[in-house]
Amino acid sequence: MAKQQRKVIVTAAVTGGIHTPTMTPYLPKGPDEVMQNALDAAAAGASIVHIHARLDNGQPTADFDTFEKILSGVKKKSDVVIGITTGGAQGMTTQERFAVIERFKPEMASANGGSINFCLSRLADGPGMDAPLHDWEVPFLKRTYDNVFKNTFADMEYCIRTMNACGTFPEFEVFDYGQLANLQYFKKMGILPKQIYLQFITGVMGGMPMSLECLLFVIDQAKKLLGEDVMYSMVAGGRRMFRFETVCAVTGGNVRVGLEDGIYIKPNGELAVNNAAQVEKIIKILHDLDFEIATPDEVRETFSLKGADKVEF
Amino acid sequence: MAKQQRKVIVTAAVTGGIHTPTMTPYLPKGPDEVMQNALDAAAAGASIVHIHARLDNGQPTADFDTFEKILSGVKKKSDVVIGITTGGAQGMTTQERFAVIERFKPEMASANGGSINFCLSRLADGPGMDAPLHDWEVPFLKRTYDNVFKNTFADMEYCIRTMNACGTFPEFEVFDYGQLANLQYFKKMGILPKQIYLQFITGVMGGMPMSLECLLFVIDQAKKLLGEDVMYSMVAGGRRMFRFETVCAVTGGNVRVGLEDGIYIKPNGELAVNNAAQVEKIIKILHDLDFEIATPDEVRETFSLKGADKVEF
Amino acid sequence: MAKQQRKVIVTAAVTGGIHTPTMTPYLPKGPDEVMQNALDAAAAGASIVHIHARLDNGQPTADFDTFEKILSGVKKKSDVVIGITTGGAQGMTTQERFAVIERFKPEMASANGGSINFCLSRLADGPGMDAPLHDWEVPFLKRTYDNVFKNTFADMEYCIRTMNACGTFPEFEVFDYGQLANLQYFKKMGILPKQIYLQFITGVMGGMPMSLECLLFVIDQAKKLLGEDVMYSMVAGGRRMFRFETVCAVTGGNVRVGLEDGIYIKPNGELAVNNAAQVEKIIKILHDLDFEIATPDEVRETFSLKGADKVEF
Amino acid sequence: MAKQQRKVIVTAAVTGGIHTPTMTPYLPKGPDEVMQNALDAAAAGASIVHIHARLDNGQPTADFDTFEKILSGVKKKSDVVIGITTGGAQGMTTQERFAVIERFKPEMASANGGSINFCLSRLADGPGMDAPLHDWEVPFLKRTYDNVFKNTFADMEYCIRTMNACGTFPEFEVFDYGQLANLQYFKKMGILPKQIYLQFITGVMGGMPMSLECLLFVIDQAKKLLGEDVMYSMVAGGRRMFRFETVCAVTGGNVRVGLEDGIYIKPNGELAVNNAAQVEKIIKILHDLDFEIATPDEVRETFSLKGADKVEF
Repeated sequence: MAKQQRKVIVTAAVTGGIHTPTMTPYLPKGPDEVMQNALDAAAAGASIVHIHARLDNGQPTADFDTFEKILSGVKKKSDVVIGITTGGAQGMTTQERFAVIERFKPEMASANGGSINFCLSRLADGPGMDAPLHDWEVPFLKRTYDNVFKNTFADMEYCIRTMNACGTFPEFEVFDYGQLANLQYFKKMGILPKQIYLQFITGVMGGMPMSLECLLFVIDQAKKLLGEDVMYSMVAGGRRMFRFETVCAVTGGNVRVGLEDGIYIKPNGELAVNNAAQVEKIIKILHDLDFEIATPDEVRETFSLKGADKVEF
Repeated sequence: MAKQQRKVIVTAAVTGGIHTPTMTPYLPKGPDEVMQNALDAAAAGASIVHIHARLDNGQPTADFDTFEKILSGVKKKSDVVIGITTGGAQGMTTQERFAVIERFKPEMASANGGSINFCLSRLADGPGMDAPLHDWEVPFLKRTYDNVFKNTFADMEYCIRTMNACGTFPEFEVFDYGQLANLQYFKKMGILPKQIYLQFITGVMGGMPMSLECLLFVIDQAKKLLGEDVMYSMVAGGRRMFRFETVCAVTGGNVRVGLEDGIYIKPNGELAVNNAAQVEKIIKILHDLDFEIATPDEVRETFSLKGADKVEF
Repeated sequence: MAKQQRKVIVTAAVTGGIHTPTMTPYLPKGPDEVMQNALDAAAAGASIVHIHARLDNGQPTADFDTFEKILSGVKKKSDVVIGITTGGAQGMTTQERFAVIERFKPEMASANGGSINFCLSRLADGPGMDAPLHDWEVPFLKRTYDNVFKNTFADMEYCIRTMNACGTFPEFEVFDYGQLANLQYFKKMGILPKQIYLQFITGVMGGMPMSLECLLFVIDQAKKLLGEDVMYSMVAGGRRMFRFETVCAVTGGNVRVGLEDGIYIKPNGELAVNNAAQVEKIIKILHDLDFEIATPDEVRETFSLKGADKVEF
Repeated sequence: MAKQQRKVIVTAAVTGGIHTPTMTPYLPKGPDEVMQNALDAAAAGASIVHIHARLDNGQPTADFDTFEKILSGVKKKSDVVIGITTGGAQGMTTQERFAVIERFKPEMASANGGSINFCLSRLADGPGMDAPLHDWEVPFLKRTYDNVFKNTFADMEYCIRTMNACGTFPEFEVFDYGQLANLQYFKKMGILPKQIYLQFITGVMGGMPMSLECLLFVIDQAKKLLGEDVMYSMVAGGRRMFRFETVCAVTGGNVRVGLEDGIYIKPNGELAVNNAAQVEKIIKILHDLDFEIATPDEVRETFSLKGADKVEF
């Protein structure tokens, strides 16, 4: 429970690289849909939009032109804070993955807390996947059964230093408990920003489970390892997304919704028709609970971001 | 997170014996106001109303006539489940405190989990208390600085056996962690009902603090000491009531609101104008989170209550 | 895990007021046996002896003459730190219970953290208790089924202020989690000593259970409620005493053994022949684990005790 | 706290692949020293020896001949249970890493719970490492800064199935909390043995930190995710090894010592002169605490091992 009055940061992760078009017709595909979903999420009240790029067939991509269209399109029409993924695509080198930072120099980007099995293979058994819309979907998902999301210490140091050089604020994706100790290592090295911001990613096959016991444990340990003033949000995919995000806000944390994390609007499996619907829903709940939502400029102040005018898109 | 689909029980504790009229003009005083608040809370969706009695000047009382007016008044117009306090008044013997059970044989009543300092003295320093509306208020509050809420093992056994004999389902008030072990003792004795129902009371001066770490700890320990299928709710007084109750629901528990627990409708200190307003607010939040609310009859089924026709009022 | 090198304080609680002569022939009875056990415990390496008084028939007593014999006898022959109970006897008023402090002005004494059911009734069913050595034993134990160990806020404030006035350092007996919040109240009031010292008492019927989960939880919460630099020890009665005390030392805490807490020397139920045997055993284990034991004078320095020359016995 | 009487399994991990000759002159190097250390550890009371192979210059190796010499040498003279690493060497494919199982068909082997950064680079800054005994040491350690210990779901499934086919019992190395969920996945798949045995590996840079809070959390979560009857041990390297292992035993777990995990015999940095010294020390502590030590045959019974006569060395 944060002691002082504070506002809740709402992030919308608009498309990600996990779900595929067969799972939901509402998944943003191609730069225009991703851009429009980001803009609508911002209009619905999101403080930050977290951006991955997808081709028109929905396939995740690291292509700069696609990113450029999305980023500049969002920036042109909205002052929302734009964060970029550095997850890259399977098979990319570290340098290739972080080139997106050097190219676009965004205000924020994700920085990973360590290596993990990031496995999506179970999604290939979901409804409709026996007759997928696109040929790429099932192999893309199944391949991850033999995939490690590699972020060695060398990778992480390279990533953080690159972001520091580019004036990009890192949001640290924490996939498991021990990754907090990894970040403590870099904190002691002196290369972390003054305000540390964590994204606890729960429920990914290969990472820490999604449970409230897990959440409270990692919050407590994060404060012990990284300092009492650490800030955090939570990724809680699937049908219970809104319930877990609400708890995260009550603990003193921030929230993240979006079709990257969960494709539903209700626990009964009703699909969310777009990102804005999820943003509206979580903001309604937060307002019911008398929380205020941070504006993009309040996020900029909290994280000492450089400003939208200093990005390169 | 409860595995199966379940509905949330909403209890309204309409007036209690903690707050005094100077603290809020909306505190139900006298049998008619208490009754009306209970009826309005039920109409707003409460599954259970938890009843204390107060005189017209707001002073808590254990007087049977006052109870009779409230209980029969509520029963006449509503099918809400009625639970009665067994807290009694300061200076009463155990037999006197539990006489209310034998007299009214309600469907539910509170049963205390052990002895504790139940201290209200700090409330005597609150706003307006330097010029209280009634002479009884300040001495009533300050006296508790030297008060123990006595529930010895003998008292508890007497209480549980009396309730069993009267067909009254106990809601166990758990004021501190160790009281779970007390209940385990009675479970082993074989006198607890098949479905154990706990009310975790946090934040009372003398009992366990109100924090999410505390809540998750006692939920976990309750399951370990009393069985995985234990059910529970939470008392979380003060300005953060709705936030904590929401978390309690997400953990798989139930909720309790009401002017006994907190006099506010918002964290900023805005007063709740009645119990119904608090019930409406928590139900709105629960609905936003796609929870369903248990009807009185669903509560009766879950707890195997004897039915409103078998009470003696 | 304490960061800096530190020594472990070993307390011997030599006779207490819980066990009765039928349970073990080795329970110190009468002032001479209590005194001799204390001296032998000190010679075996105890840093502190915690003293209750018993009559020659083993019955606990609050009689000043009996205390005087024990206290002056120990002081004459040993520099061990002497702590006195303030538990008193059933039926005593608060003033009567704390008179022992004013009379003897010891270096240390126990101060209780709140009210609790302190129940010994199950011990009346133990081996041999169907034919007890003394008539007082069974009624003494069974009576506690209806007993509350009363320590209201007023009592506690009186106790702490009395101890402060007498130059007596309080060891706070914490019987349940919520009592940490009680102590926080007095810390904010400004009447606690700079160095707070807690005795976590686990496994008493009526208080918090004896488990490692419980221990780690209250250590963590104690630091959060009372400050990172809080010091503590643990009472872990029964057959697993040495195992739990060892864990407590590894967590950064201190240890307490003695026939007050447990009458065994092994988990298989072998009786300890005296307090010294228990002290020797725990010190052997601690030495094996490369801990050093605090001398009485090191305890005096750590707690800023006034010195054995300033007591009144 | 295990409810029933049980014996503690003592594993000696005799040389591992972490420490290098410059760190301690007592590190077993070459097949003869590793074999002799294993035999001496067994003679000192170890129930299991966990075997890695090293060349004469101390360099870790996956060479079959070296393994053969160690394994057959130990088997010839001792009935100790022999477990083999499947960690392999940097650059090996999965098939190459697990070939050791197919070749030797041991009674036990390690099976990894997921991918992690397994980083030793900080050890390159330790005492004496500015003038290392061997050229290979510093590059070997520093290279791990950019290393991921890859165990994808496909790898793990391959490993478990191979071990099942070879009659080899897996000891699951759990480097971080989320790996428990990985194992739950394979439990649901039905390919885990009836008795699950975990090795919690704490304090490795890249994995979960070494703390008692961590230990109790993962024990609790392991029971929740994998079943109440899960068995476990703990790797706790460095100077506090004996303290942590002792706590692990008290929680109901088993212990592991050995020069793979820690090179010290005392917290002050005194070096252990061989594995037997560490085994003797932990057994002395466990005996002081009245634990009994499991014999190799008791381990065979507990884990339903196939017997030393069915291995292929």
